[in-house]
Amino acid sequence: MPARACTPTPGIPTLLAADWGTPNVRFFFYDAAGKVIAREHASLGIRNLGVMTYEQVLQSTLQAHGAPPDLPIVLSGMVGARGGWIEAPYVACPATAEQVSRGVITAPVERLRAQIVPGLSTGSDRNGLPGVMRGEETQIIGVSSRYGDGVYVLPGTHSKWVDVCDGEIRTFTSHMTGEMFELLKEHSIIGDLMEGADHDQEAFSRGVSRALAGAPLMPLVFSARTECLSGRLGRQQIASYLSGVLIGSEIYAEMPNLRGDPIVLIGSRELLERYQAAFAQAGVNELFLVAGEEAAATGLWILATSSGLVT
Amino acid sequence: MPARACTPTPGIPTLLAADWGTPNVRFFFYDAAGKVIAREHASLGIRNLGVMTYEQVLQSTLQAHGAPPDLPIVLSGMVGARGGWIEAPYVACPATAEQVSRGVITAPVERLRAQIVPGLSTGSDRNGLPGVMRGEETQIIGVSSRYGDGVYVLPGTHSKWVDVCDGEIRTFTSHMTGEMFELLKEHSIIGDLMEGADHDQEAFSRGVSRALAGAPLMPLVFSARTECLSGRLGRQQIASYLSGVLIGSEIYAEMPNLRGDPIVLIGSRELLERYQAAFAQAGVNELFLVAGEEAAATGLWILATSSGLVT
Repeated sequence: MPARACTPTPGIPTLLAADWGTPNVRFFFYDAAGKVIAREHASLGIRNLGVMTYEQVLQSTLQAHGAPPDLPIVLSGMVGARGGWIEAPYVACPATAEQVSRGVITAPVERLRAQIVPGLSTGSDRNGLPGVMRGEETQIIGVSSRYGDGVYVLPGTHSKWVDVCDGEIRTFTSHMTGEMFELLKEHSIIGDLMEGADHDQEAFSRGVSRALAGAPLMPLVFSARTECLSGRLGRQQIASYLSGVLIGSEIYAEMPNLRGDPIVLIGSRELLERYQAAFAQAGVNELFLVAGEEAAATGLWILATSSGLVT
Repeated sequence: MPARACTPTPGIPTLLAADWGTPNVRFFFYDAAGKVIAREHASLGIRNLGVMTYEQVLQSTLQAHGAPPDLPIVLSGMVGARGGWIEAPYVACPATAEQVSRGVITAPVERLRAQIVPGLSTGSDRNGLPGVMRGEETQIIGVSSRYGDGVYVLPGTHSKWVDVCDGEIRTFTSHMTGEMFELLKEHSIIGDLMEGADHDQEAFSRGVSRALAGAPLMPLVFSARTECLSGRLGRQQIASYLSGVLIGSEIYAEMPNLRGDPIVLIGSRELLERYQAAFAQAGVNELFLVAGEEAAATGLWILATSSGLVT
């Protein structure tokens, strides 16, 4: 079992929650007021469980924090996917937090009081494409209770751009930005030239501005190679340039949909910084930035209370 | 050494030429009138030579066809790249066939009369991006002598869109279409769902029309997954849908640059068919289609005569 960064629980917990993704899981213990009193990260995502069962991971987490075995538990993310613990069927957009909480299902285990949050589906986004999310809906529910209507941007492997309007998650679009970066880095003719991955702000910014000028994506990606061959980009700059090209293209594609709505960025510190810089190049300087972990913690508490798991 | 599909040479050869790429090489023998009298394919591209040297491959090709060891030889493609046999420095665009032929260099071998065609570079295409090509310039020279000015489209791993104007190759843009298809098929979450690779015209056409409607590329690519998860695309259709999305996006990005110019498509039969179908969906039905192999054979002859290798 991978190492666990465990901190002792200082109060009496009323809820254990987890944002349970593919490579990793984040646990949160809350007090009766909904304040997070302990948290734990583990590399025990649904693809990394090894011989552990979901039940064993949860039981050992409860024990490690001195929590009772019947503590209410709520889980979001890929744990509720087909191929996770048990499938929690998607709730269709438009959906309110209330509708998501009504889609919560009970985990298939008798000795624990565990519930799983459903993902969201959209039949047709602005481009006419279907979409699904798992985990992001919980982060948005956590953050939109504070920021209200707007465009919620969750950068990552499959970045989400989500319209929240009249308290509903209306629709959303996915951009394969993070996965594309990894694909190109690991397996392409572009990655073959890359050296190092330190962030180079100038190269990143050059990639963003090229993308914001409207150049199509496949020539832009290929230019990471030709800029290097022509001596205008160092090998150590390729990763940052490519990151700028991909993030800039994502923002460029979504700019027509923004129309002055508040923009809320939810993600890791590193991605928030990169997207903030790219948005600034696009002339968008008013952004609300929220750490993805806090968004998940708040959303899980809201769903646990509205589903009646915690009263 | 891989099997060679060899046909006897029926006349007296005056030139051996090769389109020498990364995985494969195509040899052509010509009579004094420039007619191809024998041809040979071998999986002896610059990355597949094994213990063979370039000189050995050429000598054995001459011998196998009963050609004299001092027969003039002209080579195009990656053989002239850094990492090939010897680097034939790029000729800068705009460039005429005459200028390309002046950039031909002599191969580093005493016992053969071999010359290598340079590639072309552009400092800035329509998107302000630099570009390079090797091998395509020879195909274009072969074909433009017949079709004249226009837009030359060479689909493939790194598809080229080339402006030929006043007999010059003016500039060109590269789209990473073929490599992107392979990356997504082999290494992505999209490829994980794919089953089989038989062409499905309906799925291909659906991908093309989505792209021609202007949807951005990263959501479109991701939709190969969500269309499948939502039951609107079978696993056996994903490869064709993705191919349509990528080819359609390439054509959509280049449409503003066409403006009624003649369009000449140069490539393999399979790619010509797919691009022709996608162009038809875009309302472009007047295309000249040329087999890539014939384009290379003609271009190599033209360059061998204009460089004085054959008189």
